[in-house]
Amino acid sequence: MTALQESLKAVAKGRTVISVDAMGGDRGPATVVAGILLSAKANPEIAFILHGPKDELERLIGRKHNLAGRIEIRDATDVVTMEDKPSHVVRHGKATSMWSALESVRSGEASACVSCGNTGALMALSMMRLRKLEGVNRPAIAILWPSRNPQGFNVMLDVGADIRADERDLLQYALMGAAYARNGLHLELPRVGLLNVGTEEHKGRAELKAAHDLIAANEVLGKYHFVGFVEGGDIPGQRADVIVTDGFTGNIALKTGEGTASLIGDLLKEAFKFSLLSRLASLLAYTSMIRLKKRIDPRRVNGGVFLGLNGTVVKSHGSADATGVSSAIKLAFQLAQSGFSERLAARIATTDGSALTGAAEAVEIKDHAE
Amino acid sequence: MTALQESLKAVAKGRTVISVDAMGGDRGPATVVAGILLSAKANPEIAFILHGPKDELERLIGRKHNLAGRIEIRDATDVVTMEDKPSHVVRHGKATSMWSALESVRSGEASACVSCGNTGALMALSMMRLRKLEGVNRPAIAILWPSRNPQGFNVMLDVGADIRADERDLLQYALMGAAYARNGLHLELPRVGLLNVGTEEHKGRAELKAAHDLIAANEVLGKYHFVGFVEGGDIPGQRADVIVTDGFTGNIALKTGEGTASLIGDLLKEAFKFSLLSRLASLLAYTSMIRLKKRIDPRRVNGGVFLGLNGTVVKSHGSADATGVSSAIKLAFQLAQSGFSERLAARIATTDGSALTGAAEAVEIKDHAE
Repeated sequence: MTALQESLKAVAKGRTVISVDAMGGDRGPATVVAGILLSAKANPEIAFILHGPKDELERLIGRKHNLAGRIEIRDATDVVTMEDKPSHVVRHGKATSMWSALESVRSGEASACVSCGNTGALMALSMMRLRKLEGVNRPAIAILWPSRNPQGFNVMLDVGADIRADERDLLQYALMGAAYARNGLHLELPRVGLLNVGTEEHKGRAELKAAHDLIAANEVLGKYHFVGFVEGGDIPGQRADVIVTDGFTGNIALKTGEGTASLIGDLLKEAFKFSLLSRLASLLAYTSMIRLKKRIDPRRVNGGVFLGLNGTVVKSHGSADATGVSSAIKLAFQLAQSGFSERLAARIATTDGSALTGAAEAVEIKDHAE
Repeated sequence: MTALQESLKAVAKGRTVISVDAMGGDRGPATVVAGILLSAKANPEIAFILHGPKDELERLIGRKHNLAGRIEIRDATDVVTMEDKPSHVVRHGKATSMWSALESVRSGEASACVSCGNTGALMALSMMRLRKLEGVNRPAIAILWPSRNPQGFNVMLDVGADIRADERDLLQYALMGAAYARNGLHLELPRVGLLNVGTEEHKGRAELKAAHDLIAANEVLGKYHFVGFVEGGDIPGQRADVIVTDGFTGNIALKTGEGTASLIGDLLKEAFKFSLLSRLASLLAYTSMIRLKKRIDPRRVNGGVFLGLNGTVVKSHGSADATGVSSAIKLAFQLAQSGFSERLAARIATTDGSALTGAAEAVEIKDHAE
């Protein structure tokens, strides 16, 4: 055990250690430290390793009471910017805070990593340093989407790890998304839907029809219920708990949903400013609005989870404020506590055989299982 | 001139004739007739040809004052259902109200057609009966999306005519979408954006990069300004007036946006029901809410326009109520009045040469133009 690891052991004291990249977010390290402070206050079971320029971070942390003895700083002088190309970061990013943050998960010092930085670079570095799970071809980014389901959210993936996905990738997304819904949303038998332009089986692209058959055939082994094709309106709906799609479509759907929600929010504010009466109404409506905001506030469900890697990585929104950063840390903590990464690896290993066989053979396996 | 045409001439009396399919909507012909009645009251310049089972339609119309002398019924006994496959309707749909409604545009009796029926069947029949515009490979469906722009809406296409689109199709969508924005939203030089997962030029699929160059190269001939790649958040945003994408992505974005808006609306209602105070607030907020609802109510911007055909076809939402049907009729009327179909044909004919040449050659054309 190195001196560094000894010191960390003292910091952790049985706590769950989360590795946090202080840099790369739109609002800078002060916001990340503020988010850590919120998390530390709310949950005494978390300890932190914070990565970035040591002097600056020490100044920001200062003598904050709640962090005393629960945080360790790892000096990293370079920063991955939003403009950096992933391929460049993979080759030249060794001195960055992002690299350092992932390293703590790789070495086993931390149970999960949180970063607000460049998504493409974070995924590329994660794949290189943590490696893909045995049996996974393309890792995916999963998010929680506010929905009409009792659990309040649906899992949607991939929202942007890779713009391509063939039928076997889509099957793996179904397996990984279902595992996330079991561990993150506590659903015993998550309902999986495959995103398409119609619910009829004859609709859509050829690879979607192949994926339809493959996902249907692996229901039992994957421990999910397949509801077939779903449409865009079902992402916030109640027909499925897990929505599976490729990263191109998923990313556009995610940003369209965010943009639409934000437009409605602004129009609502405008509507309430219109007259004296509506201003009065908005005062009275204040608590209702706060309640609604809590329900759909993207800051409270902040964090895309990278699935399919040896280790848990949570990507916080680049523009996250302290509340947003704290939500991402909470998510990382919950996933670490549930042993999600190990469970997912086991699930993929079990289904690996059928996942990599064709639909016809998989159907056979299913028939035997029933 | 046949007896039928003579009788129509008497009905039209210088009015703009809109051909309406009474059948195929989720709410049945009574709702369509109610929508026609709203339109007739609001606008004395419209006359109607209504297609469907004559006896039923006559009963529904009865002695409605505003429709007297302004509507003619064409008997059509068959109905296209939402479940019918487009290929089946094309082969066996001659006796349907949808076929009959398109026939009135084909023959020149009506200036535009409105239907609430099966989208796929309506597009397939429209392509067969009205034919594609010279130079257009794939027609597209364009909708108006509430946005932050001064005009209140952005044009988005294709939202589901075809799940495929190569770079030349995407260029044609840019041309057609810009023409729609000029005629429908009165924008002299519409800003066109190409939907992608990032705004950097190196991102996205190969066909999108090719389309990027092709659309950029045809700015001058197409009379639009190209802003490059845009993201899902820009669909309701202010970076572009026209959003171009393939029909798979566009359909999923549209339904995701609708689903998200509808979820927020329902949660808002719920929030206001929570306590006595919030109920009181909702009473006071009533006019603000109505104002907001008017701004984003999908019924008030109801109608996907089929672009790239010889004739104007407006697809109303299948679940449209009377207000929705009336909005679709209004849109058809406005497009007919502006001579949109003829202008679009002229625009496509002008740009046809460059549209069908490769990107490299098109770049050359642009260089000469500058």
